[in-house]
Amino acid sequence: MSSGLFITFEGGDGSGKTTQAELLGAWLGEAGRSVVRTREPGGTEVGVEVREIVLHHRGDIAPRAEALLYAADRAHHIATVVRPALARGEVVIQDRYIDSSVAYQGAGRVLDPEAVRGLSEWATEGLLPDLTILLDLDAASARTRLDGARTRYDRLEAEASEFHDRVRSAYLALASAEPERFLVVDAAAPVDEIAAEIRARVARLV
Amino acid sequence: MSSGLFITFEGGDGSGKTTQAELLGAWLGEAGRSVVRTREPGGTEVGVEVREIVLHHRGDIAPRAEALLYAADRAHHIATVVRPALARGEVVIQDRYIDSSVAYQGAGRVLDPEAVRGLSEWATEGLLPDLTILLDLDAASARTRLDGARTRYDRLEAEASEFHDRVRSAYLALASAEPERFLVVDAAAPVDEIAAEIRARVARLV
Repeated sequence: MSSGLFITFEGGDGSGKTTQAELLGAWLGEAGRSVVRTREPGGTEVGVEVREIVLHHRGDIAPRAEALLYAADRAHHIATVVRPALARGEVVIQDRYIDSSVAYQGAGRVLDPEAVRGLSEWATEGLLPDLTILLDLDAASARTRLDGARTRYDRLEAEASEFHDRVRSAYLALASAEPERFLVVDAAAPVDEIAAEIRARVARLV
Repeated sequence: MSSGLFITFEGGDGSGKTTQAELLGAWLGEAGRSVVRTREPGGTEVGVEVREIVLHHRGDIAPRAEALLYAADRAHHIATVVRPALARGEVVIQDRYIDSSVAYQGAGRVLDPEAVRGLSEWATEGLLPDLTILLDLDAASARTRLDGARTRYDRLEAEASEFHDRVRSAYLALASAEPERFLVVDAAAPVDEIAAEIRARVARLV
């Protein structure tokens, strides 16, 4: 129980990442683990400023600039928050990581996914999660959920459905290429059912 | 005279880049060329926000994050300002470019200079200047000039003299590796003398 554990949640906006991250964090906390809940972008003070640019800047941002901004947020977050927590033996539960960049900037923005991954690998000095939970949901269902929850879309949420279809396909391809690292969950299932499935997988790691 | 020309100024803070860029821009303007004066970081609206983070954030920024922020600023600036101006046949005179990142983040922050260069090459899709003017000045003289001009140092200006010595050495190494692209000028010379030397070199290009 002394080594850290790095768990990331991935999936489209509206897929339930925040809810499931909270439930998993509470369960691990009750089990006596020290848990750090964090997110990208915006998990640090520098990151909050970067998040403001990438999600809320008025006007276009060049696709490569967007990819580099996410990588910058990630470099600072991993160096100052995640690696120190893992070194203290804590569990880091994180909303979005490298797979988000590969899916959104690589596939969504149609940049070279391997180049986008390379930026993040350099940014993080190659840190990979022990487990990545992909909450898979078709784009139409995600949009319906978001319509009920949001009064305003951010720059990426506002993209057309073709963009979100490309993102979903990229996520599924990533999961299928690394089945050991990924747990793919049907995000349309009831919240409690999903939480139980996640707990069962995490129990094998702690 | 219909093709664009991309000229960058490099050198430490206090070396006179702004003054010389203004003089060169005025001279080319009088000669009938359409001139765009710009800078990195901060040559776009997105860039102004990034510049505020990299130069004025209170507290440390992880070195890799700093390098990625400069590359992000550069990607957006080149795509939205520099390439369009060059396509219109204009002269772009720019304060700082890729060589600044290699010198400051590569040598100054002691990251791998080739990795730092790689970020910028990806950011700009490999755009290199037609001419880079390096205003070379030893760190002690630059500091004396800055002390007279600044009431407050930004994050990079405030670095120790060893940092600025590494930056200067890196600049000179870059210039010596690409003599065709670089003009190295003694920044301690009188302003008019430097301006004349720069004009003589630029005259061969226009």
